[in-house]
Amino acid sequence: MPVGLSAPAKLLPVDGVRLAACASGIKKNGELDTVLIEIGEGASTAAVFTQNAFCAAPVVISRQHLASASPRALIINSGNANAGTGQAGMQAAEQSCESTAEQLQCGASQVLPFSTGVIGEPLPVEKIQQSLPDLAANLQPDNWLVAAQGIMTTDTIAKAISRQVDIDGNTLTITGIAKGSGMIHPNMATMLAFVATDASIPRDSLQTCLQQVIEPSFNAITVDGDTSTNDACVLIATGKSGVSVNGAHEGFMQALQDVFTQLAQAIIRDGEGASKFVTVQVNAARSMEEARQVAYTIAHSPLVKTALFASDPNWGRILAAVGRAGVKQLDIEKVRLFLDDVCIVEQGGRAANYTEEQGQSIMNQPEITILVELGLGASSATIWTTDLSHDYVTINSEYRT
Amino acid sequence: MPVGLSAPAKLLPVDGVRLAACASGIKKNGELDTVLIEIGEGASTAAVFTQNAFCAAPVVISRQHLASASPRALIINSGNANAGTGQAGMQAAEQSCESTAEQLQCGASQVLPFSTGVIGEPLPVEKIQQSLPDLAANLQPDNWLVAAQGIMTTDTIAKAISRQVDIDGNTLTITGIAKGSGMIHPNMATMLAFVATDASIPRDSLQTCLQQVIEPSFNAITVDGDTSTNDACVLIATGKSGVSVNGAHEGFMQALQDVFTQLAQAIIRDGEGASKFVTVQVNAARSMEEARQVAYTIAHSPLVKTALFASDPNWGRILAAVGRAGVKQLDIEKVRLFLDDVCIVEQGGRAANYTEEQGQSIMNQPEITILVELGLGASSATIWTTDLSHDYVTINSEYRT
Repeated sequence: MPVGLSAPAKLLPVDGVRLAACASGIKKNGELDTVLIEIGEGASTAAVFTQNAFCAAPVVISRQHLASASPRALIINSGNANAGTGQAGMQAAEQSCESTAEQLQCGASQVLPFSTGVIGEPLPVEKIQQSLPDLAANLQPDNWLVAAQGIMTTDTIAKAISRQVDIDGNTLTITGIAKGSGMIHPNMATMLAFVATDASIPRDSLQTCLQQVIEPSFNAITVDGDTSTNDACVLIATGKSGVSVNGAHEGFMQALQDVFTQLAQAIIRDGEGASKFVTVQVNAARSMEEARQVAYTIAHSPLVKTALFASDPNWGRILAAVGRAGVKQLDIEKVRLFLDDVCIVEQGGRAANYTEEQGQSIMNQPEITILVELGLGASSATIWTTDLSHDYVTINSEYRT
Repeated sequence: MPVGLSAPAKLLPVDGVRLAACASGIKKNGELDTVLIEIGEGASTAAVFTQNAFCAAPVVISRQHLASASPRALIINSGNANAGTGQAGMQAAEQSCESTAEQLQCGASQVLPFSTGVIGEPLPVEKIQQSLPDLAANLQPDNWLVAAQGIMTTDTIAKAISRQVDIDGNTLTITGIAKGSGMIHPNMATMLAFVATDASIPRDSLQTCLQQVIEPSFNAITVDGDTSTNDACVLIATGKSGVSVNGAHEGFMQALQDVFTQLAQAIIRDGEGASKFVTVQVNAARSMEEARQVAYTIAHSPLVKTALFASDPNWGRILAAVGRAGVKQLDIEKVRLFLDDVCIVEQGGRAANYTEEQGQSIMNQPEITILVELGLGASSATIWTTDLSHDYVTINSEYRT
C-alpha cells in the first residue's frame, strides 16, 4: 500500500506529444510493458542518466543519439533492463531504435531507447519490434495514464501528474510520468521519468532547467541506497504553445519543480514495502553536501529504517547514524534532534521534557519528519525515504521467482 | 541459527586474569548481564574504541582512564548502552568505576567501564554496584565462558576462543571473548571484545600489535553498516609467562591474528537474522581502500543482501553495486565477477559458459564467496558479511518491545 498516494488525477495532453502502450509479452503476466512516445517536429529534448559505471545498453545508446540528433521518439520497455547484457544488449537497443524509426519515418538516431526491469537477461527485442505497428497506430495525445502503467515494474500504482501555469495570459501545460520503487538512490534520477511541456525552450536552456529541478526532487530520494543501471529522466519542450520561457521564469519553474517533486515523492510513497513516508531534514550544516551526507546516513541506516517500520521512537539509532556520518568536529552538545516538532535530543542526551509517549504518537503516523540541527553552519538539505519492512525483504527476495 | 558456528570449545585460562559474571537485573529476562574482569599487577593493556562522534559515556571514561593509569579491572554490562545519556550517563559510568575500585582496592582510574545494549536509557548503575561484592568474591581464572555469555545482547551464541603458541619451548596462551550481532560496521571494532595473553608486551608495543590484528578482523566485517556508539576492543598482556614478544614475532602474531579473525567472523556468523556467511573479496584494485570501497558497497547493498537471503544468483545486483561504488575510470570490459570459482560476468556481460544452475548451486550453500576482479591494479581486500533476512527485520523492529 503506497503511503498517501492515490491513482493519478486527470492528466492533460501536451500538444506535440502522442503516446501508446501495449503488452508485448516481455512481462510474463501479460501486463503493459512497451511504450512509444512520439515527439512532434521542432521540440527540444533534454535528459539526464544514471551515473552507475555499469549503465545499461539503452542508456549508452540514448546518450549517443541525444548527442547527435533531435529526438522524435522514445521507445520504452519494462520487465527487462537490458543491462549487463554486453554487445548483444547494445545490438538489441539499436534494433529497437531502427524498427521504431522505420515505423515513424525518422532516423534511427532520432529514437531514444529506455529499459527497466531484471538485469542480466537478454532483451527479447523481437517482441518490441512485433508490437511497433500497433503502437504507432494507437498513438494518442491523451494516453499518458496507460504510458505510466506501461513503464511500471515493482510499482504498485501508476505515477503521473499534470500542472498548468499562466504566462502573460497564455496557459502552459506540463505533464509527466515516472516509475520506480526499489534500487532507488539518486545519483542522477534512479528511475525512469518522462515529462513534457508545450512551452518553447531551446535545447541548452532546457537542459539547465532539467538540472535545476532534478536536484531537489529525483536527486533527493532514496529507498535502499542502490543506484540503478538504467535511470533516466527526459524533459521535452514541444514549443506548440508558442510561448517561450527559460530557467529564469519563476512561475514556469515553480510549476515544473512541482511536477518533478510530486513525481519523485510518489516513487518514495510507493517504495518497495513502504509503510512510512519519511522526510529527513538536516539544518545548520556547514554546506549542503554535509547536510546531505548526514541525511543519507540516517536514511540508509537499516536500524533506523527497521525502527521506523516498527513505529518505535528508538532515537538512539538516529543519533548513532548522525555520529557515524563523518561530520568533522561535530560538537554533540550542539546537536538537536526532532521528530516532527518534538525535541528529542539536546546537549548530548534525551531532551529534558521529552516523553516516550510523545515520540510514540509521532512514530505511529504514516508521515514523519526527522529533523537534525547540527549547530555548525547555515546550510540545509531535505531528502525523502521509506522504512525497511518485511515486505521489502519479501519483494526483493522473490523478484525473479 | 548462526551459520557454521557452534558453542565455544574448551577455553584456556590466562594467568593474570580472573573473571566473574552475574545477573544484576539490567536485562529484564534475568540473564547474565554484568561481568567483572580483574587484571593482575604488571600487565599491559591496549584498546581501540568506536569512531562514532556520539560515543557512549563508558567509551569517554575508558579513554580517559586508559590515558592516565594502568588498568586493573574492566566492569562490563550488557542490556544498556549508557549512550545518548548526557551528563547523567557520565556520572553513572564514573560511579561504576569508583565502586569497582573500592571492591578491588585500586584507583577508580584503573577501572575501565564498558556497556552494550539499548541506547538512550539511563543506566541503572545501582544494580551493578549491588552486584560487585558477589562478582569480586567469584573471580576465577576459568570463567571465560560465563563472561562471554554475560556480554551478549542479540547474540544467539557465546563467542570465545583460545589458542596456544610455542615460543622457544615456552607455551603462550591467548583467550578472547566477543559480542556483537547487529549495528555492526567496523570503524573501529563495532562490538565488544576482550582478549588476554600471558605474553609480556610493553604497552606501546601492545597497542601496535592490536592495531595490526584488528584491521583484517574486526575492521573487516559488516552486518548492516551501522557503526555502534559503544564499540571497544581490549587486548591485555599479563606478562605472567615471562616470555617477551612483540609485533615482529611471526608465530605469536599469527596466533593472535587467528583469535581476532575467528572472533570477528563469529560475529558475522551470528549476525542478526543471518542465514549466510558471505566473504566479499575484491582483487586487482589500485589500492586497498579502493578494494574495500567496492567490497563494502556490495556488502551494504540491501538488494544484494536480499538476493543472498533468497539464494538467488541475481548477479545483476552485484554488478550494479560495483558500478555505483565510485571507482574512477572503471573499465567494465575488464571487470570479472565470480561466485566461488564460477565466473559469472566478463566483458561487460554474462560469461559465455555460465549457467543459472551453476549460480544456483553455489547460492544454495550457507557459505559463499563473492569475488570481484577490477582489472585496475594489484591491491586486494577481503571482508565478511551476512544476508538481509526477514529475521533481521523482525529482530530490529522488536528490539525494544
